[in-house]
Amino acid sequence: MADSPEFGKVVVFGVGLIGGSFALALKAAGEVEEVVGFGRSVATLTQAIDLGVIDRVGINVGQEVSDADLVLLATPVGQMAEIMARIAPYLGPNTVVTDGGSTKSDVVAAARHAFGERVAQFVPAHPIAGAENSGAAAARADLYRERKVVLTPLPENSVLNVARVRSAWEWCGAQIHELTPAEHDRVFAAVSHLPHLLSYALVHDLAVRDNREVFFTFAASGFRDFTRIAASHPEMWRDISLANRVALLEELDRYRAQLDELRAVLDAGDGQRLEEIFDTARTARRAWQLGQK
Amino acid sequence: MADSPEFGKVVVFGVGLIGGSFALALKAAGEVEEVVGFGRSVATLTQAIDLGVIDRVGINVGQEVSDADLVLLATPVGQMAEIMARIAPYLGPNTVVTDGGSTKSDVVAAARHAFGERVAQFVPAHPIAGAENSGAAAARADLYRERKVVLTPLPENSVLNVARVRSAWEWCGAQIHELTPAEHDRVFAAVSHLPHLLSYALVHDLAVRDNREVFFTFAASGFRDFTRIAASHPEMWRDISLANRVALLEELDRYRAQLDELRAVLDAGDGQRLEEIFDTARTARRAWQLGQK
Repeated sequence: MADSPEFGKVVVFGVGLIGGSFALALKAAGEVEEVVGFGRSVATLTQAIDLGVIDRVGINVGQEVSDADLVLLATPVGQMAEIMARIAPYLGPNTVVTDGGSTKSDVVAAARHAFGERVAQFVPAHPIAGAENSGAAAARADLYRERKVVLTPLPENSVLNVARVRSAWEWCGAQIHELTPAEHDRVFAAVSHLPHLLSYALVHDLAVRDNREVFFTFAASGFRDFTRIAASHPEMWRDISLANRVALLEELDRYRAQLDELRAVLDAGDGQRLEEIFDTARTARRAWQLGQK
Repeated sequence: MADSPEFGKVVVFGVGLIGGSFALALKAAGEVEEVVGFGRSVATLTQAIDLGVIDRVGINVGQEVSDADLVLLATPVGQMAEIMARIAPYLGPNTVVTDGGSTKSDVVAAARHAFGERVAQFVPAHPIAGAENSGAAAARADLYRERKVVLTPLPENSVLNVARVRSAWEWCGAQIHELTPAEHDRVFAAVSHLPHLLSYALVHDLAVRDNREVFFTFAASGFRDFTRIAASHPEMWRDISLANRVALLEELDRYRAQLDELRAVLDAGDGQRLEEIFDTARTARRAWQLGQK
C-alpha cells in the first residue's frame, strides 16, 4: 500500500509561476490530495485547471481555509495584507500558512497585524526562483528543484509548523535555509534589490539624454549583462523597492560611500588602490562563481 | 591574374588577441603580403609564428617600419607612448599607423607628443571586440567580423590615410564608425568603463564585510549578470580607468547625481516616480536589445 500524501488540502492564493509551480511540485511528489486555487483573474484560474495546476477554483475563503493543511500566499507582496485579513478569521487549528514573497519584514508586519496570536501559524518563506515568464502557463513542477528557499521563522512558530512548511518546500526539491526576516531583507537588498536599482539608474541616465543614440550604438556585451535586470518589470520592482525601503536605503548609502571612495581614488590617480579594489572584487566574484552549480 | 594585396608589409606591435586577429583577418582576405610582429615575450612571438599569425619576428624597428605600409599598435595603452617614440624617427612617407586602444584622447596626446607633425600619419582606432581569452592562441581571423570599429581621425589626417586605415579594418569584416577622440571617450566612459567601475564597487563592498558569506550564499542570477564584468582583469581596468579618468569622473558624477535622486524618491516613498524611472529604463533597454543582432 502506498504512503498517504503528507498534505490533504492545499490552498494557493495566486496561481501564477510561484504558486502554480508549488502546486505542481507537490502533486508530482504525490504529497498533496487536493489543490484549491484563488485568484483575481477567471481566465488565469481556468487555465490553471486546464493545465492541472489546481483541482478546483475556490469560492468561499472561509470554507476552504478552515480545513486546509497548508495555505500558500503567492500573490504580489502588495496584495498579501488584504488576503491575510480575509483568511484570518477562518484559519483552522491545524492550518499552517506560508508565502512566496521576496521581502519579509513587511510581510511579517502584515501577518502580525492580520493574524494576531495566530501569527504562530504563519511561517514566512522566500523561494529564490524566477523565470523569464510568469503566469500559470509558466508554472513547472521542477521550478524549485535545487533552488534555495529561505524560511524566516517567527519566535511564535511551533517547531511542528516550521517543520511542516520546510517539508513542503523540500518536497518541491528546494534547499532550505533559515534567516531572520531582518537578515533576509538586508541580504536581498544587497545582492538583488540594490543591483536592480543601480542597473535601472544607469540605463535611465542614458535614456534621458538628447544624444542617447550615440551611447546606445556603442553599448556592447558588458553593458548587456550589467543592464539585463533593467529590463525587469517596473511595477514589481517598485513594489519590492518600497517594501524593502529601509534595508535598501541602508545598502544604497553604503554603496554611495563606496563610490565616493572610488571617485577620490580615481581623482587622485591612485592606480595602486584602484587595482587593489578591482582585484579584491575579482577574487571574490571568481570564488562565488566557482561555488555556483 | 589575381589582384595584388592592398597592403605589402604590415607591422604589428603586440601579437595577442587584438593584433593577432587583425593579422589573421588581413591574411585570410589575401590583402597583406607580409606580417612582421614585435612583442615583449619571445614565447608569444614564437607561438604567433607557429600559428601563422605573423610571418617574421621583427628585430630592428627602424628597418621594419620605414618601408611598412601599415603599423598597428596593439599593446596595452600604457605601452603605446614608448613604442610611438621608438618608431617616430623611422616612419616612411607612405607608412600609416593605427592602434587598437580602448581609450583615445590619451593615445592621441601621446601620438602628438611622439610624432609631432607626422601625427598626420596616425589614424586612431578602437575595435569593439573582446573575448574571454587573450594571447596569440586566442587570435581568430573572424574576431572583427560584423563588430564595430571606431575611428577617431585627427584634423591633420589626410583623406587618403583615413581611407587606408578604414579599408584595413573593413577587410577584417568590421563596421566602421567615426567619432572625435573626446566623443569616443565620453561614450565609452558611459557604456563600458562606468559599468565596470560600478560592478567592481558592488562586489568589493560585499567582499570586505565580515559576514560576506551570507550575502554571497543568496546571490542569484541578477547578481551573476550584474557582476560578470567585476571578474575582468584588474590591471587592464586600472589602466583604462586612469587613461580615461576625466570622462569617467564626469560620468561617475552624473551617475552619483542620478543615485541621489533615486535615494530621495525612495526615501519619500514616491512609488509613482520610482516606477517612471524604472519604466523609462526598461523601455530603453528593450529597444536597445531589439536593435542588437
